[in-house]
Amino acid sequence: MPPTSALTAAEIAELAGVSVATVSKVLNGRSDVGAETRRLVEGVINKHGHRRKRRPTPAAPLVEVVLNVLGGAYAMEIIAGVERAVRPHHLGVVVSGMEGAQTLSDEWIERMLARRPSGIITVFCSPTAEQRDRLSAREIPFVVVDPVAEPAGVPSVAATNWSGGLEAGRHLLALGHRRIGVVAGPEGTLASRARLDGYRAALDEAGIAFDPALVRAGQFRIDQGVTAGHDLLAGPDRPTAIFAFSDPLAVGVYKAAAELGLRIPGDLSVVGYDDTAPASWLHPALTTVHQPLAEMAGEAAAMILATARGEAPARTRVVLATELTVRASTARREN
Amino acid sequence: MPPTSALTAAEIAELAGVSVATVSKVLNGRSDVGAETRRLVEGVINKHGHRRKRRPTPAAPLVEVVLNVLGGAYAMEIIAGVERAVRPHHLGVVVSGMEGAQTLSDEWIERMLARRPSGIITVFCSPTAEQRDRLSAREIPFVVVDPVAEPAGVPSVAATNWSGGLEAGRHLLALGHRRIGVVAGPEGTLASRARLDGYRAALDEAGIAFDPALVRAGQFRIDQGVTAGHDLLAGPDRPTAIFAFSDPLAVGVYKAAAELGLRIPGDLSVVGYDDTAPASWLHPALTTVHQPLAEMAGEAAAMILATARGEAPARTRVVLATELTVRASTARREN
Repeated sequence: MPPTSALTAAEIAELAGVSVATVSKVLNGRSDVGAETRRLVEGVINKHGHRRKRRPTPAAPLVEVVLNVLGGAYAMEIIAGVERAVRPHHLGVVVSGMEGAQTLSDEWIERMLARRPSGIITVFCSPTAEQRDRLSAREIPFVVVDPVAEPAGVPSVAATNWSGGLEAGRHLLALGHRRIGVVAGPEGTLASRARLDGYRAALDEAGIAFDPALVRAGQFRIDQGVTAGHDLLAGPDRPTAIFAFSDPLAVGVYKAAAELGLRIPGDLSVVGYDDTAPASWLHPALTTVHQPLAEMAGEAAAMILATARGEAPARTRVVLATELTVRASTARREN
Repeated sequence: MPPTSALTAAEIAELAGVSVATVSKVLNGRSDVGAETRRLVEGVINKHGHRRKRRPTPAAPLVEVVLNVLGGAYAMEIIAGVERAVRPHHLGVVVSGMEGAQTLSDEWIERMLARRPSGIITVFCSPTAEQRDRLSAREIPFVVVDPVAEPAGVPSVAATNWSGGLEAGRHLLALGHRRIGVVAGPEGTLASRARLDGYRAALDEAGIAFDPALVRAGQFRIDQGVTAGHDLLAGPDRPTAIFAFSDPLAVGVYKAAAELGLRIPGDLSVVGYDDTAPASWLHPALTTVHQPLAEMAGEAAAMILATARGEAPARTRVVLATELTVRASTARREN
C-alpha cells in the first residue's frame, strides 16, 4: 500500500514538468522516454511515491483487434489467434477494419474509448504519436502487429521480415534466376522495407546488382499483383522470377502470368509471403515465406493480458521467425 | 407513457400463467408462440398495460457474432459484412468461435451475458431452446445466419439453399453427367438438407434415380473433402462429377482428384458452394453456387439494429437468392 500522501500521475507530471503521458510511460516501464526524462520522473516518484488514480470505471473484458483491412486469410488467422489466446481469460474480441488505411481513424479511437477495452492490438495499422499518448494516458495497453513505421519503444510483434526477404532471394538465386521482379508492399512501411533489404542482401551475396526498375510497390491486394505482374512481364526482357510480398499479391501475379500465357514455374517462378491457407490451394502450390500468424497473435494477446493484469510483459518487442515453405511455384531457370 | 399501475413482464407472466420468455416473445412480436397463448398474454396486457422494467444496466454498444468455426473465407466475409453494417451505428463487433460445434456453449452464453451486447448473430451455430429463452428473457435480440435446425419463428437469415442445390444439379445434368457424387455438409442441418433436396429435384426433373451410395456427409472442411473425394473416386465406376456443399470441400475434392491423377474438368467436373474469394484462385477456377454473404450479414445486422432500437424488424426470416457462378471446373462429360 503506498502512503496516502503519494502522488497521482498528474501530480507527478506537474512536479517533474512533463506530460501525464510521459509519466505513464515511465510507470509502465516503456523505453520510448529519454534517459534524462525518465530519471527526472523516477526521482519524483521515488521521493513522493505514486498513487494510482482509481479509474472512473473498470476496463471492459474486451480486447480490440483493429486491422488495416478486415478481410482475407491473413486477417482471419490473426483474429482467430487472438480469440483463442484470450478466451480462457474470459475476454471478448472486438474487430474493426480501417478500409485500407495504415493509421487509426480518430473516429475509431472515440468509439473504442467508449468501449473501454482492456487492450488493443493493431495490425498493419498504427496509432499516431498523439493517439499513442491518449492510450497511454488512459492506461490502455496496446500492441502493434506488423508495425508500419513505429518508433522504438512501441510494443510490437512482428516476424523476421529481413530474413524472410533474404531467404526468398537466396532460394530464387540458387535456382539460377538473375532477373527477378519484386512486387513489394506499401512504400514507407517497415515490413516491406525490411523484406526488400533482406532480398537485396541475397543479391549482394551472389554478386548481382540490384535493379530498381524491377520493383513495383503497392498495397497487399490481388489487383495490385495483377497490375504489377503485367507491368513486369509485358516487356521483352522479362524477369524469370517474381518475389511478391504477400500471398494475395502472388495470386495477382499468377493471374497476370495466365493472361500472358506464361506457365508457372516453367516460364516464371513465383515466391509469395505469408503462407496463409490458400497458398497451398493455388496451382501450382505457392512457394512462400511462412509467417507464424497464430503465434504472432498469441504473443500480442499475451502482452496485452500481462499489461492489463498490471504486470510488465516479459517482452515488449517480439520478433518471431519466418521460414520459406517451398512448394511447386519455383523451379530452376530454364531460359 | 404507460400508467404506473401497468404490469411488468413478470407480473403479466404470472397473471397469464405462462413463462416470462413467452410474455417477452409476445411483446417482441415473435411468431413462435401459439395463437391461444398469444391471445391470453395479449388479453392481460390489454387489460393492465405493460411497463417495461428498466434494465439494471443499458446494453453495451456491441453486437456479438458467433460462428461454429472462426476461420476461413466464409467466416471472414460474414464478419466483415456485419462490421460494415453496424459501424455507422457506433457498434463494435465481438467475434467468437465454437470450435466446430453447431450449438452455443453455456460457457460462451455466460461470458456473452456479462458483456451485455445489444444483439447476437449466430452463424451455422444455434442457441438451444433453453438458451433462446434466456436471451428472450433478457431482451437480447438474436438472429441466426444459416440456421442449423431452427424451429419456425426464430429470426434467421439464409440463402436459397434448395434452389442452389437445384441449380448446381441442373448444370451438371445439362453437361451430360449422370453419375454425380455429392459431398454434403453436416447431417441434420437445414442448409445441407435443403441443398441435397434441391439437387434431388434436379435429378427427378431429368428422370435420373438418386443413388444414396454416391453421397458422403461431413463437416464443411477441406480434409473432409479430401477423404470423401478419395472415397467416391477410388472405385471402378467412379462419378464423372462431384457437387461439394462448400468451397473448402471442393478444395479437398481437387486435392483428392490430383492425388488420383484425375484432371478437372476433363476427368471430373466439380461444383462448389459459397463462392468465397478463393474459389476464383483455384485451378481450374471453381464453378460454385454464390451465396451473397456480405448481404446476408447486412440483413442480420439490420434485424439486430431494428430490434435493439425497440422497433419490430421489417422481416424476421430473410432468404436471399443464390446464383450459380460458372467458371472452369465443369465441362461436358467426356467418358
